[in-house]
Amino acid sequence: MANAITPRAEDYSRWYTDVVLQAPLADYSPVKGCMVIRPLGMALWDNMRGALDAMFKATGHDNAYFPIFIPESFMTKEKEHVEGFAPECAVVTHGGGRELDEKLYVRPTSETIIHHMFAKWIQSYRDLPLLINQWCNIVRWEMRTRLFLRTTEFLWQEGHTAHATEAEAMEETLRMLGVYHTFAEEWMALPCVKGLKSDSEKFAGAVKTYCIEAMMQDGKALQAGTSHHLGQNFAKAFEEKYQTESGGWEYVWNTSWGLSTRMIGALVMAHGDDNGLVLPPKLAPTQIIIVPIYKGEEKARVVGQAEQILQALAASGIRVKMDAREGVRPGFKFNEWELKGVPLRLELGPRDIDAGQATSVKRHNREKKPLPLSSLADGVGPLLDEIQRDLYRAALERREAFTRVVDDYDAFKKTIESPGGFLRCHWCGSAACEKQVKDETKATIRCIPLDAPEEKGTCLVCGEASKRRVHFARAY
Amino acid sequence: MANAITPRAEDYSRWYTDVVLQAPLADYSPVKGCMVIRPLGMALWDNMRGALDAMFKATGHDNAYFPIFIPESFMTKEKEHVEGFAPECAVVTHGGGRELDEKLYVRPTSETIIHHMFAKWIQSYRDLPLLINQWCNIVRWEMRTRLFLRTTEFLWQEGHTAHATEAEAMEETLRMLGVYHTFAEEWMALPCVKGLKSDSEKFAGAVKTYCIEAMMQDGKALQAGTSHHLGQNFAKAFEEKYQTESGGWEYVWNTSWGLSTRMIGALVMAHGDDNGLVLPPKLAPTQIIIVPIYKGEEKARVVGQAEQILQALAASGIRVKMDAREGVRPGFKFNEWELKGVPLRLELGPRDIDAGQATSVKRHNREKKPLPLSSLADGVGPLLDEIQRDLYRAALERREAFTRVVDDYDAFKKTIESPGGFLRCHWCGSAACEKQVKDETKATIRCIPLDAPEEKGTCLVCGEASKRRVHFARAY
Repeated sequence: MANAITPRAEDYSRWYTDVVLQAPLADYSPVKGCMVIRPLGMALWDNMRGALDAMFKATGHDNAYFPIFIPESFMTKEKEHVEGFAPECAVVTHGGGRELDEKLYVRPTSETIIHHMFAKWIQSYRDLPLLINQWCNIVRWEMRTRLFLRTTEFLWQEGHTAHATEAEAMEETLRMLGVYHTFAEEWMALPCVKGLKSDSEKFAGAVKTYCIEAMMQDGKALQAGTSHHLGQNFAKAFEEKYQTESGGWEYVWNTSWGLSTRMIGALVMAHGDDNGLVLPPKLAPTQIIIVPIYKGEEKARVVGQAEQILQALAASGIRVKMDAREGVRPGFKFNEWELKGVPLRLELGPRDIDAGQATSVKRHNREKKPLPLSSLADGVGPLLDEIQRDLYRAALERREAFTRVVDDYDAFKKTIESPGGFLRCHWCGSAACEKQVKDETKATIRCIPLDAPEEKGTCLVCGEASKRRVHFARAY
Repeated sequence: MANAITPRAEDYSRWYTDVVLQAPLADYSPVKGCMVIRPLGMALWDNMRGALDAMFKATGHDNAYFPIFIPESFMTKEKEHVEGFAPECAVVTHGGGRELDEKLYVRPTSETIIHHMFAKWIQSYRDLPLLINQWCNIVRWEMRTRLFLRTTEFLWQEGHTAHATEAEAMEETLRMLGVYHTFAEEWMALPCVKGLKSDSEKFAGAVKTYCIEAMMQDGKALQAGTSHHLGQNFAKAFEEKYQTESGGWEYVWNTSWGLSTRMIGALVMAHGDDNGLVLPPKLAPTQIIIVPIYKGEEKARVVGQAEQILQALAASGIRVKMDAREGVRPGFKFNEWELKGVPLRLELGPRDIDAGQATSVKRHNREKKPLPLSSLADGVGPLLDEIQRDLYRAALERREAFTRVVDDYDAFKKTIESPGGFLRCHWCGSAACEKQVKDETKATIRCIPLDAPEEKGTCLVCGEASKRRVHFARAY
């Protein structure tokens, strides 16, 4: 039997950890800051990977694989990059029983090694654009870690591209931001704000960093994916040049973009409730759980019918399981599959069979609905679609309730403390005002939304002129 | 334009490297011993992964993910294991800017960390069997490396299981050996011998190691996958116990099994020819390449028709591309797609269209066959199946021609030098004779075939009694 889950209202942070450990999605490991992803968590990531990979392919990207080790001399070639990443790297000093001549960094991201290879592969404008993606593990030494949200090792994908012109690179940066946004909204049922990071929050080595930002149930924001316009910073550091049609030589323009297993944490926090996980049908490893309910001699008939349903649903492409365990009460099974977040439960007892139906129960609101057995495969599809839409709508409503226009710094300080959320404020654009807000309230500028309308106003902090509102929030 | 490929007869080793670099499947990296897997190589691995993953799921295994770092104290818990692996590890000594209290080994395989977690998760007989697989990167410091065949970092999957009884663990060991065998034969068109490793060749920490062994075109063997019966070695080192139905406590029985990107090297060497790669249709990222052939004003008609074929074949689930590049002659295109190993080419010119046909050309033997346009999707399927069978049959014939019964050590020495191959010899079972053969001829016992019939004989080296023949070969 699972341990009790701390209610969200009591301690949201403990609730999160309880759900992750008990579902179970992950476990702590004996390696400081590193976690173990358990089968349910891994199946979720594999489904996310499948959906994203298809979207990357559809936008012309190929997968490749680059070494996990980065020679120290590579790390130091792009100044901002090394300053941003070197301090948080794991460093290999010994290999094959002896000390290495040059230290190797375990990749904290792969720009340096990839642009070294790109420089070798790119000769002419005919080689552009070069559109590459990599699925891999990443290591960033973290002091304070949380399962999925911040771990020393994590899994992610990192896209890296090279283009002939700045405009094409910018187009790519925004295209992939759009792919992340579509993935978050349509697959994860997670509404996200598309926006630009302030200079102090951008990727070390980027010209501009775009992001999608989501809102969790406790009023804290979560950065869900980033897409960087790298300009020619890495191209110049790695002599990544191409011959133009007219015969001259130009530096290429680069982008990179990444999304990680942190998104599993976002999924937990966006939809979960006090009974455990709530998974959107499009990503759920198990979409439907069938629970046969019977006493004594009814067993053969009920389990036989449930088995038929299982076969029929599986044949129609639904990810379905049956829980026919002996000696375990239906109520216990219901709780266990609710904890695991299975979107739809089908209960089947003798009376259901007599009535030619199964009773469907939605995970997120326990709404019951009888479904005729004669057309079950046709009936559950629309129900799963409905759940996917319901989850998105609920998450959107929560976010809207958490989004406020604030023009006064005192009101800002109170609101950010409770209830939190996205505070839409005017900001003059100075790093000083941004830093003051962060130091005084722990809130950061999550993004300057791409669709923020022009609106004259004055900076929350200094009162200088501002042209549009930005999203402030405390964040994971 | 690709560089020339060294013919196999001239220098098989250079031929291999030429094909891998020019196809291109991979490239050298600036990190010693590590390679970059380029898109064609990665697409192959992704297809292999997809096929294997489905087979692992069908046999009840779930994917999970464990940390890449292994604390030094874990490595040393299983004596044979640490002796076998520690000397070839990369070691992290610094993280987050300071020296670590305990060194971390970059995983050379994950038994130690996984059995630590298994010990935590397994409480009772109800938790068994525990069937886990992991797709990940592995690092083993290698002095002499070769693209795909032996690299410091490589990608693989590693299965790890725990069972209540020795018999169940043995059954699992052989079941997964069977999965590898089926994958090699049916997907890779690579005939393999299933067998047991001698004690000196077994995995460090295993009780028994089983393997599948393949024969390359130069008469050298290649170990294509291994499945280990670990007994209770790791269970005892990591206190991995379960409570039995009757209430007592027992150590579990473990297996592990792995298959790596080395298999891409096997695929190159098993089927490739002097024109480049030859890929089996079931794994080929592109199964069919359509090359429209036209002059001047014929273009619209020919490319239009080719485009229709492309759509029709793609709609029927075939992985198909069209090469409609301007300014590139058909002969150049043919060579390029042959280099990349695409199993079937469809040539389409104005006269083909007039005759209501396309001309199909098989990659591996350049056999031409006209196919009616009216039923093209139906026509190419059987042709791809035929190619898959042809490749398997050709590889099997080569292996059979390379397999010889040898009873005399002088004949053995000559034969192993040229032509090489599998030499089926009697062996007394002693490590001394095995070592003498290795020292004197560089040949090793590849395996004791599972299906080797009992046959009385005398050891090739010492003349002592032997009950069955084993497979000797030089190997990659």
